This record gives sequence, C-alpha cells and structure tokens, in this order.
Amino acid sequence: MSPSAAGGKGIAAPGAVDAVLAALSFDRDGLVAAIAQQHDTGEVLMLAWMNRDAVKETLETGRVCYWSRSRGSLWRKGETSGHVQHLVELRVDCDGDAVLLRVDQTGPACHTGAHSCFFRAARADALATLDP
Amino acid sequence: MSPSAAGGKGIAAPGAVDAVLAALSFDRDGLVAAIAQQHDTGEVLMLAWMNRDAVKETLETGRVCYWSRSRGSLWRKGETSGHVQHLVELRVDCDGDAVLLRVDQTGPACHTGAHSCFFRAARADALATLDP
Repeated sequence: MSPSAAGGKGIAAPGAVDAVLAALSFDRDGLVAAIAQQHDTGEVLMLAWMNRDAVKETLETGRVCYWSRSRGSLWRKGETSGHVQHLVELRVDCDGDAVLLRVDQTGPACHTGAHSCFFRAARADALATLDP
Repeated sequence: MSPSAAGGKGIAAPGAVDAVLAALSFDRDGLVAAIAQQHDTGEVLMLAWMNRDAVKETLETGRVCYWSRSRGSLWRKGETSGHVQHLVELRVDCDGDAVLLRVDQTGPACHTGAHSCFFRAARADALATLDP
C-alpha cells in the first residue's frame, strides 16, 4: 500500500493505479478526457484533461489533479482558488479514452464562479445563462 | 422556425443554433467534446465528439448525432442499434470546448451492452466491473 493510501487520503493502492493506467488509451498528446461529476447530486461540473501523471497523482492522493493544456503543466485543481475536488470514485469508459471522476467539489468548479462550467443552455431561440 | 422545429421534433430554432455555434470553440480537428447524461437520473452515459454539422443536426432534429473519429463521418446514435438519444437540453461550458447533452437514452448507451460506457471503477487494488 502506498504511503498516501496508508495515510487514508489516497483511494487506490499501486495495483489499482497500474490497472487504471493499463486500461487507458492516451491520445497523441498523451491525454484522456476527464469528466468531473458531483458524486451525490449527479451534477456534471466540468470537462478537463489528464495525462498519466495526473491520473496517478489523483488516485494516490485523493485530490483531483488535471493536465492544463494551456499552461502545459499539472493543474492541481483548487491549488490557488481553494476550490479543490476530493475524489470519491474514478471510472474508466469502454474504450479507455475518457474517465469519469465522481468528486466532492469544494466551492464553485468553474473559474467564472459558477458552480458548474456548463451554465449556459440552448433555449428556443437563444443561448441562456442558467441561474447559478 | 425551421421545418424540424415546426414539426415539434427539434428543440431549437435557427437563432439558438447560431448562438450555440458562435459560443463553441472547435479544436484543430473541428470538434468539441460531448458528454451525454441521462436527464432524469443524472447518470453519465458516454463521452463522444461533435463537429459543427453534428451540433446543428442534433439541435434541429432533437436526436443526438455525433462525429465518429474512427469512421470520419457523422454518427447518428442508434442508427443501427436503435439505441437512440433524444435531446432534452444542450449546455455549453465556460470556454466553449465541451457540450453537455442532457438526453433520454433508449436502451444501453454503450456498444458493449452496458447502460453507461463508464462501467469500470478503480477499487482499492484493481479495476472492477460494475454491476450493470
């Protein structure tokens, strides 16, 4: 068991990390898509990207870490904002190019301050901003 | 109002289609990520891709159409399997590179027969297949 898992913070021992990484098909940029969903309400919060290191760190620490395509570096969600995501469960899709992160979100997930990044919806004749 | 919307099947008039397309930032392959979520249970069903034509057709017909990256063509979900997705609501994320499709799924969403493509989950020391 890894030190982080032994400390009660991680949710996966090395065997699970290896199994998840083996099941993933990273794209030409070394990434998989990652959907974050609030575990209890089912609200879809955001879509981001993970590389191998981000998947590994997330499983080992229990805190969600993405890969920032704009900055080209690991992005520990909430590192500056405090709006962290605690991992409840990580799921892998059938062809291994996407993961579903069931999380417990602290504060808003979106950098705009909205709870979810998906705060605009197509209505009959316009794109409407949903009530936060 | 477009003929399809007038027929009661589409959920968006041309104004909404234009507004959604204007809000989207298609990637170098002309695609945005599309998350399908069962509208009433909140279950995340799958992640796929849409180009401009797929977004437009989905909004105009109310039946979800993706872009198949493997086949390089429009993919009208359920065209052969019958497992169609009726669009309830289309949402756009903050930076316009992902959409959330709130749908009513007929039958299983996954080509494996699983209800959701995300049927495997990291457990303490392995990747477990969830009970369908």
